[in-house]
Amino acid sequence: MTKPESRKSGVAAMSSTGKCATSAPANAQVNNGALEPGCPDQSTYIKANVMKQTSRESMNWRNSGEDCEVYDDGTNTFFWRAHTVTVLFILTCALVYVTLLEETPQDTAYNTKRGIVASILVFLCFGVTQAKDGPFTRPHPAYWRFWLCVTVVYELFLIFILFQTVHDGRQFMKYIDPKLGVPLPERDYGGNCLMYDPGNTTDPFHNIWDKIDGFVPAHFLGWYIKTLVIRDWWMCMIISVMFEFLEYSLEHQLPNFSECWWDHWIMDVLVCNGLGIYCGMKTLGWLSMKPYQWQGLWNIPTYKGKIKRIAFQFTPYSWVKFEWKPASNLRRWLAVLGIIFMFLLAELNTFYLKFVLWMPPEHYLVLLRLVFFVNVGGVAMREIYDFMDDPKFHKKLGQQAWLVAAITVTEFLIVVKYDPNTIMLPIPFFITQCWFLGILLIFTWTLWRFFIRDITLRYKETRRRKQEVPSDRDRSLGNGNPSTPSGRSKLNGSSETVRQRKS
Amino acid sequence: MTKPESRKSGVAAMSSTGKCATSAPANAQVNNGALEPGCPDQSTYIKANVMKQTSRESMNWRNSGEDCEVYDDGTNTFFWRAHTVTVLFILTCALVYVTLLEETPQDTAYNTKRGIVASILVFLCFGVTQAKDGPFTRPHPAYWRFWLCVTVVYELFLIFILFQTVHDGRQFMKYIDPKLGVPLPERDYGGNCLMYDPGNTTDPFHNIWDKIDGFVPAHFLGWYIKTLVIRDWWMCMIISVMFEFLEYSLEHQLPNFSECWWDHWIMDVLVCNGLGIYCGMKTLGWLSMKPYQWQGLWNIPTYKGKIKRIAFQFTPYSWVKFEWKPASNLRRWLAVLGIIFMFLLAELNTFYLKFVLWMPPEHYLVLLRLVFFVNVGGVAMREIYDFMDDPKFHKKLGQQAWLVAAITVTEFLIVVKYDPNTIMLPIPFFITQCWFLGILLIFTWTLWRFFIRDITLRYKETRRRKQEVPSDRDRSLGNGNPSTPSGRSKLNGSSETVRQRKS
Repeated sequence: MTKPESRKSGVAAMSSTGKCATSAPANAQVNNGALEPGCPDQSTYIKANVMKQTSRESMNWRNSGEDCEVYDDGTNTFFWRAHTVTVLFILTCALVYVTLLEETPQDTAYNTKRGIVASILVFLCFGVTQAKDGPFTRPHPAYWRFWLCVTVVYELFLIFILFQTVHDGRQFMKYIDPKLGVPLPERDYGGNCLMYDPGNTTDPFHNIWDKIDGFVPAHFLGWYIKTLVIRDWWMCMIISVMFEFLEYSLEHQLPNFSECWWDHWIMDVLVCNGLGIYCGMKTLGWLSMKPYQWQGLWNIPTYKGKIKRIAFQFTPYSWVKFEWKPASNLRRWLAVLGIIFMFLLAELNTFYLKFVLWMPPEHYLVLLRLVFFVNVGGVAMREIYDFMDDPKFHKKLGQQAWLVAAITVTEFLIVVKYDPNTIMLPIPFFITQCWFLGILLIFTWTLWRFFIRDITLRYKETRRRKQEVPSDRDRSLGNGNPSTPSGRSKLNGSSETVRQRKS
Repeated sequence: MTKPESRKSGVAAMSSTGKCATSAPANAQVNNGALEPGCPDQSTYIKANVMKQTSRESMNWRNSGEDCEVYDDGTNTFFWRAHTVTVLFILTCALVYVTLLEETPQDTAYNTKRGIVASILVFLCFGVTQAKDGPFTRPHPAYWRFWLCVTVVYELFLIFILFQTVHDGRQFMKYIDPKLGVPLPERDYGGNCLMYDPGNTTDPFHNIWDKIDGFVPAHFLGWYIKTLVIRDWWMCMIISVMFEFLEYSLEHQLPNFSECWWDHWIMDVLVCNGLGIYCGMKTLGWLSMKPYQWQGLWNIPTYKGKIKRIAFQFTPYSWVKFEWKPASNLRRWLAVLGIIFMFLLAELNTFYLKFVLWMPPEHYLVLLRLVFFVNVGGVAMREIYDFMDDPKFHKKLGQQAWLVAAITVTEFLIVVKYDPNTIMLPIPFFITQCWFLGILLIFTWTLWRFFIRDITLRYKETRRRKQEVPSDRDRSLGNGNPSTPSGRSKLNGSSETVRQRKS
């Protein structure tokens, strides 16, 4: 994964420092957007005009892992700056107005609420201007900083809820919406599963029409976005199918997991999820092929071009194709298993959390949580991918990924603490057997793939190498691997060469 | 302010990439610690061994403003990594233990407190591992990330207090310490100011001995640290003297500002503050002269060297001399005035805040606030200096400076809201006159220095240039300015050349 760094930084130097770069010493070219010391006049001029704020962050991550070529003319206008001092000034004015000019009400509960909301708003002000930037910059870095701050607030809220008693925690939701904190009504699920119901003469297919409701586009949209997040057909399909298995396994705990067999497999997996994943993969293909040329809006001559540029502001700055390669080594394999596990856990939390906190499924907080995860999941997945894949081996899990992991765990802990009885309902014996078998299969494969197979391969390899030393060296030096990467090579990655020698 | 960037990055390249750097293309050398694409084998080796986590941040700021030379062998051991996953794991375990294995008490108030404390702790866990790094890295970046998070928590706490009624806010302090929330006893200040009191036969100097208490070393230490923070003799002296003037002006509001004249000027300004500033300046001199060579502890052969290295871990990574140059242009002049204003406001807040929130002066929260400001003020001042001085003109005020400014403002707003009567006590006429005169003087000087004088100078300059075009061009091209920089040149900076031509 060598990146065309030299060419890219050359472009950046050209565009951001003008003529001057050509005469500057080569090793002092562009270092985080620093201007070369050789030409002070030029630099003063540029300082004042173009590079009012050399976006250090964007320069950084331009060099940090994308596979596509990016052209950026380095325009850095009002839109891109962080406006730290402006935000501070406006914040001060707002505080002066609200706390000194308005009269404080005498209601302690109201003031407490207001104080907490004000604290959150100040935290958002701080975070949106000052938090650490993540991997995404489109449509604007501040957008992602905002979601990072929301993540922090949500996690702290969950921690607070986690430390209350079950009764207090449920009643606490009343502070957010007075209608909450009331037990959910029992619902009747399941029932007649005939696709063609001869008993109903007016419309024998009524069971099917009953299932086609608002959740069909929701499922489709959900899986479209999940595909954009995961960026891998296989992982999407595995998670999609696994979730239906989980619904089967847990329908004795949450009755709304119980669906008809054709609802599980045809409506959900094939139609809704499948179509969502298909459209997602098409979009991914377009995103990985589309040119990434970023010009300042004022540098575009035509009106149509300007509108196109504005629309493209909502597409990514550059594109990284995820190649998870789960079978390439043990670490990646365990990481991919962990990702799938956490993903499914987060999906289950959606249902369990609203169950234990007495949230009606149609409540806006449930929807907000999903909107939150859509915005945050993409960043988190990209950070996990970078963490796993970075050739520089930073060994620092991204902030958003860290928080999303913490949130998933905290949500699960809340579920366990608030309703241990439901969670502990004994799983039917048949289902336990299936899961046991599945886990055993995965374990065996892991053992075979990363321990037994590797040892035998390595043994054969050393024996073969001893026999044909000269020809082997020629081939590896020439680096001429004419085989096109197959589906399996994507899975296995670096161990490809080992297998080639075997066959 | 051209930095020896090429040489520095050369050193970094040498030390972090070994032999490989010499054969790499010049413009792909070290870009944020990226390894050159030319030599994959070498890079894999280094990846696994030395650069387990190339500290991108430290590489960044190594290039961002210090004047001294820094040598760093790039050792990046366990001590330096962020341990994001480890912290996440330990956090999860702690949450599981506390919330699932311990029984939750039925006391709502206790649980609320516990929930808030837990939220703060989780926030600290997140922040210490993940927050954006500031300009300081010694003794460890996590130390400064910790203080950044504390700053956020403190600011949010202040905002919350600000939104309560006066009564509720004072009573709220009881949650922190049940002994608080009680009106302070009236104290008797002032009194006999005779240095030699003939009335007291046993010890006529008893007035002096009375004043020598725990506050003398506190004043000394405080000003020693303030000098390290401000790094400028003149600004320290101005703030020190200005504060005594403020004490004179405000002793009708807060009685503990009233002191004897010799306590103000001899004990405070001359002895305590003066000695503190003197020692601070000596330390600054040492810090700006000392070599900055950072070797990994295991690379040092001798035992004595290792101990010295550990001790030096508590000295800065590199050193930036602050040259505030207030008279160089209008922006800097206003910025320096603003800094002095905010500094004095923060000092006054110390006294007013404990007065309005009924905090006894010896309470540990008062001391904690000072410890907090000592840790945070240095970072904030450095960030303000970078913001003002950065030749790259980032135009982004540092996060810590932003927060410290917000905190100072919020503290002041709390004072105004909680006790408007004290703040509004009419200032004696004589003092109003003095302040009016002072402000008028500053205003006049500003007007003369940056508007009138510059216009006349520019006029004379252009007239002179027209007369002596050839000789002038020679001088400016040769860049031969033989005069050594005087104290005045430090003040004026870039306008030096203009004044030279005038004389």
